[in-house]
Amino acid sequence: MNVMKEKIKIIGFDADDTLWVNEPFYRETEEKFSDLLKEYLPEEAIMQKLFRTEMQNLELYGYGAKGFMLSLIETGIKISDNSLPNEKILQIIQLGKDLINKPLEVLDGVHEVLEKLSKKHKLIIATKGDLLDQERKLEKSKLAKYFHHIEIMSDKKAENYQKLIAHLDISSEEFVMVGNSMKSDVLPVLELGSCSIHVPFHTTWVHEEVNGSKIENDNFYEVKSISDILAFFE
Amino acid sequence: MNVMKEKIKIIGFDADDTLWVNEPFYRETEEKFSDLLKEYLPEEAIMQKLFRTEMQNLELYGYGAKGFMLSLIETGIKISDNSLPNEKILQIIQLGKDLINKPLEVLDGVHEVLEKLSKKHKLIIATKGDLLDQERKLEKSKLAKYFHHIEIMSDKKAENYQKLIAHLDISSEEFVMVGNSMKSDVLPVLELGSCSIHVPFHTTWVHEEVNGSKIENDNFYEVKSISDILAFFE
Repeated sequence: MNVMKEKIKIIGFDADDTLWVNEPFYRETEEKFSDLLKEYLPEEAIMQKLFRTEMQNLELYGYGAKGFMLSLIETGIKISDNSLPNEKILQIIQLGKDLINKPLEVLDGVHEVLEKLSKKHKLIIATKGDLLDQERKLEKSKLAKYFHHIEIMSDKKAENYQKLIAHLDISSEEFVMVGNSMKSDVLPVLELGSCSIHVPFHTTWVHEEVNGSKIENDNFYEVKSISDILAFFE
Repeated sequence: MNVMKEKIKIIGFDADDTLWVNEPFYRETEEKFSDLLKEYLPEEAIMQKLFRTEMQNLELYGYGAKGFMLSLIETGIKISDNSLPNEKILQIIQLGKDLINKPLEVLDGVHEVLEKLSKKHKLIIATKGDLLDQERKLEKSKLAKYFHHIEIMSDKKAENYQKLIAHLDISSEEFVMVGNSMKSDVLPVLELGSCSIHVPFHTTWVHEEVNGSKIENDNFYEVKSISDILAFFE
C-alpha cells in the first residue's frame, strides 16, 4: 500500500459502475424487452440473440444507449420473424428513452473518495460510451468539480489510453486507472505499464467479462470497494 | 484581409460540410426513406413529420446517425398509423447503416489549405455529433495529421466554445473558427468575441439555418470557398 504516493501524477476514474450505477439499468431494460417478447421465445434465448446482434453492430454503433436501442429493435423483429407489431416497437423505443432519462445514482463512498483525493492529486474521468449520454450523466452526478479533465472515449483499448496519456503530457508510469471492468480499465492499462486498481461491481455486461486466470502483474491491485483506494495514496 | 496574422493563435475548423461532405448523404437517406413511405404520404409532408420528430428527440439523442435512425423509425411508424411492415423498418435500419458506412469525400481545396496553414499555425477540429461517427470520418479523411487537437462536442453553443477555448489555454481574441453553419460555427463564436469565417456549403440542414438580416460584426468574414481563407493568414 501507499506505493503510489510518489510516482503517480494523474488518477483516472472509469465512470459507469465505478462512480455511478449503469449496468443494472441496462439489465432492467433487457428484462422489460424480454417480457415484451415472451410470446416468441424464452428469456434466455432472447438474451442470446440480443447479445449476438449487439456484437454484430458494435463496430458500427459503438457503445451507448442509442446503439443499444437500435439493436433491441433489430433483435425484436428477428425474434418475431418479421411480425413484431408497431406498438411493440414503439414500446421498445420508449424503454430506450426511459433508460437515457434514468436518474443518476452515485455509488457509495464516491463523493468522500473524490473529495479527499482531489485535494492532493489531479483526477480525470476516462469513460467510454456515447458523448451526450456521458455528459448528461456527469452533469446529473454533480461530480465534475473534482476532475481536472473528462475524457469520453469511443473505446478503451491500449491505443486509446496511450493517446490519452500523451494528451495529459505524462508518462505511463505516472498514470493509474481505477475502474470496474477488467477488459476496459485493467488489461489495456497494464499493457502500457501503468498501474490499475480494480474495484469490482456486482453486475458486469458479458462483453466486459474476461475469462482467465489470476493476473500476475506488480502494477495490478484489487480492492473490495472504492473507499479502499484511499490507502494507496495516503 | 491579412488582419488575423498577428493575433490569432489557433484556427478551428468545423468538419461536416466544411472539410468533408455530410449533409448531402443525410438528404439522400431522407429521399430513400421518403420513397419507402410514399404510399402513406407525399414527400414534403413526410419531411415535415421527420423534422418534427427529430426536434422532439434532439435533446435526448443529440446529433449523429444513430439518433437520426431512431427518429426515422419513429416517424415511419407514425406516418403509417402503426402499420409499417417489419420489412420496411429493417430497410430503414439498413439505410442508416449505409449512411454510417458512406465513403468519405474530402471537399475541394481542403488538403491544400490545411497543408499550408498547418506549417505556420496551430489547427484544431471543433465538430459536433456522435463521437464514433466523427472519429471514423476523421480516420477515413486522412486529415488528422494537420491537427493539433480534435474536439468532438455534443453541441456548439457559446458555452461549449468557451470551454474549448479555456481548454486550449488561449483568450477568445486568439481564436478563429472556420465553418459552414451560421448557427453552429459563426454566431456562438462571435458572441464570445472570437473571429469567424463563414464558408457556405450548398446544402444546409433546416435546423442549422438562421433567418435574419446580414451580420454586422467586425469579427465576421465570409468567403466563397475554403481556399479563400488563406488570404487572411498570409
